Amino acid sequence: MNLGVIRYVIARILRLEIIFIGIPFGVSFLYGEPFLIKKSYVITMGLLLITSLLISRKAPEKMKLHTKESFVIVSLTWVFMSLFACLPFYLSRIIPVFVDAFFEVVSGFTTTGASILTEVESIPKSLLFLRGFTHFVGGMGVLVLATAVLHRNNDESLYLMKAEVPGPTFGKLVAKMSYNSRILYLIYIVMTLILILLLLLGGMPLFDSIVHAFATAGTGGFSIKNANIGSYGSAYIEYVIAGAMLMFGLNFNLFYALMLRNFTQVYKNEEMRWYFKIAFLATLLICFDIYPRYGGNIAECFRHSFFTVSSIMTTTGFATVDFDTWPVFSKAILFSLMFIGGCAGSTAGGLKISRILILVKSIKALVRREVDPNRVTTVRVDGKPVEKELFHGVTGYLALLIFLFLLCMLFIAKDCPDFQSAFSAVSNTINNVGLGFGIVGPTRDHSCFSALNKLILCLCMLLGRLEIFPMLVLFSPSFYKDMYFRVKIKNIDEF
Amino acid sequence: MNLGVIRYVIARILRLEIIFIGIPFGVSFLYGEPFLIKKSYVITMGLLLITSLLISRKAPEKMKLHTKESFVIVSLTWVFMSLFACLPFYLSRIIPVFVDAFFEVVSGFTTTGASILTEVESIPKSLLFLRGFTHFVGGMGVLVLATAVLHRNNDESLYLMKAEVPGPTFGKLVAKMSYNSRILYLIYIVMTLILILLLLLGGMPLFDSIVHAFATAGTGGFSIKNANIGSYGSAYIEYVIAGAMLMFGLNFNLFYALMLRNFTQVYKNEEMRWYFKIAFLATLLICFDIYPRYGGNIAECFRHSFFTVSSIMTTTGFATVDFDTWPVFSKAILFSLMFIGGCAGSTAGGLKISRILILVKSIKALVRREVDPNRVTTVRVDGKPVEKELFHGVTGYLALLIFLFLLCMLFIAKDCPDFQSAFSAVSNTINNVGLGFGIVGPTRDHSCFSALNKLILCLCMLLGRLEIFPMLVLFSPSFYKDMYFRVKIKNIDEF
Repeated sequence: MNLGVIRYVIARILRLEIIFIGIPFGVSFLYGEPFLIKKSYVITMGLLLITSLLISRKAPEKMKLHTKESFVIVSLTWVFMSLFACLPFYLSRIIPVFVDAFFEVVSGFTTTGASILTEVESIPKSLLFLRGFTHFVGGMGVLVLATAVLHRNNDESLYLMKAEVPGPTFGKLVAKMSYNSRILYLIYIVMTLILILLLLLGGMPLFDSIVHAFATAGTGGFSIKNANIGSYGSAYIEYVIAGAMLMFGLNFNLFYALMLRNFTQVYKNEEMRWYFKIAFLATLLICFDIYPRYGGNIAECFRHSFFTVSSIMTTTGFATVDFDTWPVFSKAILFSLMFIGGCAGSTAGGLKISRILILVKSIKALVRREVDPNRVTTVRVDGKPVEKELFHGVTGYLALLIFLFLLCMLFIAKDCPDFQSAFSAVSNTINNVGLGFGIVGPTRDHSCFSALNKLILCLCMLLGRLEIFPMLVLFSPSFYKDMYFRVKIKNIDEF
Repeated sequence: MNLGVIRYVIARILRLEIIFIGIPFGVSFLYGEPFLIKKSYVITMGLLLITSLLISRKAPEKMKLHTKESFVIVSLTWVFMSLFACLPFYLSRIIPVFVDAFFEVVSGFTTTGASILTEVESIPKSLLFLRGFTHFVGGMGVLVLATAVLHRNNDESLYLMKAEVPGPTFGKLVAKMSYNSRILYLIYIVMTLILILLLLLGGMPLFDSIVHAFATAGTGGFSIKNANIGSYGSAYIEYVIAGAMLMFGLNFNLFYALMLRNFTQVYKNEEMRWYFKIAFLATLLICFDIYPRYGGNIAECFRHSFFTVSSIMTTTGFATVDFDTWPVFSKAILFSLMFIGGCAGSTAGGLKISRILILVKSIKALVRREVDPNRVTTVRVDGKPVEKELFHGVTGYLALLIFLFLLCMLFIAKDCPDFQSAFSAVSNTINNVGLGFGIVGPTRDHSCFSALNKLILCLCMLLGRLEIFPMLVLFSPSFYKDMYFRVKIKNIDEF
């Protein structure tokens, strides 16, 4: 393992984080916040600089980087980033317990949006901005950002992006454009700006528009209102955000294809078509199911249903109503949507539509083969045959997710009063949704968990965001053996 | 598709069912039951005879039989068997609604043990016997019985057994002995007799011992007491039944190997070792979790924990305590055990340990491969490498199960007051457990579901018992097209 490059990349990202912390620091001046808050930003930035210098000062001779290194870089980066970004909350005593602050920030970066705060409206503006900004950065990816900023367009960036960008396929379209992660960020920023404008047009204050746009873009779900998006009481704002969430749950390569006027490619994209079909069907089903609850007001039912489906399916986690009181049928659909998630290559979590697509098609083929073993069946997505290896990977991923899901649920069960809450707490963190049912319902928060269980939920969020494998490296004994071995060699002959 | 052989085999089995209905008919004389009950048996037997003669009177010229035919035979047989076996309950007005009677009998044959009866102690003895007997016959399999009785030891029986005996592997050990399904039934009967003896020694009345032994042998779970096994208040009986359930959850080939004094093969069997390890670990964990609930009485905790783990893991569904009141941690373990199930080639339901074994090992290999793509990883079970096709089949099966699970849950959600109940109702039918949590908890029954949802739960039970694929044939349009086509040809030129 190339230890030098790991240290180098992590150090560069920590230096990048200084700028990232500098933005809310600036905001704190705008709103004339107390000295204690400003001081906590300065200390954080100072610690970031010192740590990054301690880790690595100059580029290593060999920049070679493979899957293993990129996994280590990605997982360590996300943990380190969160450890530093939570300092302003902790040092300013806004969140006096370190684990809570860490939870809040991991939830931000992983675009989960699960909060331990029972009351958000009294939090200083700059910290609310930081909280929303973690969604924005985490959504597209920290390392994608790094490669965009550092002008690195080589194999190394490709490995890092592979480890960070969600979804099973890293097909032709992506490979073509991966050499320029700047385009990805450009599309992302433009879309966010449009959203801010649309929200301003709906009468939302500028600060609220910016932070909610960050949370929507990253499909995160942190709100700056205690009553969440519902607090604005505006159908326009709800429809704008619902529509925007759906947009950010799409594969960003589609927008790139649109930029290149490649309309047929977009139109024929199977993942997108399934994504909209599922969202539409779920909205209709829930709309009919909750119809009696809202006094037969079909427009209101549709609005609530559409917003909630869009919020849960893109794993954002905004809420306009307390859907925890909806019938079991609607809840079961929402649970399914949590696991389905958005499209690959989007900022959304969950299994991703492309995995579902491959699963459903492969299952169909499997059934046909079971009934008639002589029949030749080929599974195709977007007209191209799906290799067995890919199907293997997808089903293996699903099985691994279920296994980790059960394990985490057993751990956190102690803090849950009922089965639904335990199930929901894990599924809304591992799928990066941020809110669910029971004790983690739309009117509740995550403060009821013990410190250990908060850390386990942090792990769930990271597992979900980074799609399991990079995080598992940190739990393999061989990794530590390898690290220890390399460090020793390095100390002996400056390898 | 060879329609002749399908009709022939089904007709033979219906004739076999006449004998099967004749046994409780005899019991009704022993207990001097009313004429109405006896009449219902006679009508049932008469209808069976007429129907079987109508379907097929002589053997077809070609006995050729492939996967598709065997799937059709197995699925149709199970549906027909249940349609007739529920008649004594319906005609005698003991269960006045036909769907309820059908549900009860499907639950019996599939060894689920889910009941719609709120009160069982007042039911006539012969019907309680019939109810228990469905477990016994369904446990080992109706078609295995048919091949055993009909002296068929050829390729045809092998196909039928493959479609009916649960579990993914149909390895060397099974292939060697499959030519004699009589040995399977012999072991089964001897073990059941031993269990009856042990229960008699514990002071359980003869009738109770026989019916409970049937329910244990088939890992079904119908009790003839309202308070289930707990009603005897005997630790001896509870331990005997708990131990017996574990035995019937083992692969029957192991007992055959023991008969052949092939001890090393048994000792080295990985599935068995995992099975006992999981049962032991689950018992310990639950024991500690419920410790405070039983006033710190460790012996009582262990007994309850061991019995419940054994009952749920083997998907029997007996109960000695109301485990629905246990903490969420214990409930989560029990839910996991429902899905894990017993060993392949046993009478138990669930995914089966061998599938779990292949999944866990393949996931490990997948993680290693993801981290280090150059590494060659081979998955081995019992020292033999697992073919990719088999892994493919196992993960595909899991994905299909999850898909059907969600679909069924959406259907039955209407009748469920909470998410846990809906989740539990499907998981305890699709895994053939028979009882779970919430509205289907140990102190409740399945009478609260609507007629349509009872039929959906029947489908779940059949999907679980026959491991999905045979049942799906009945839902494929090509099957009906094929049937129609063949019948037409037959009518034209007596093909």
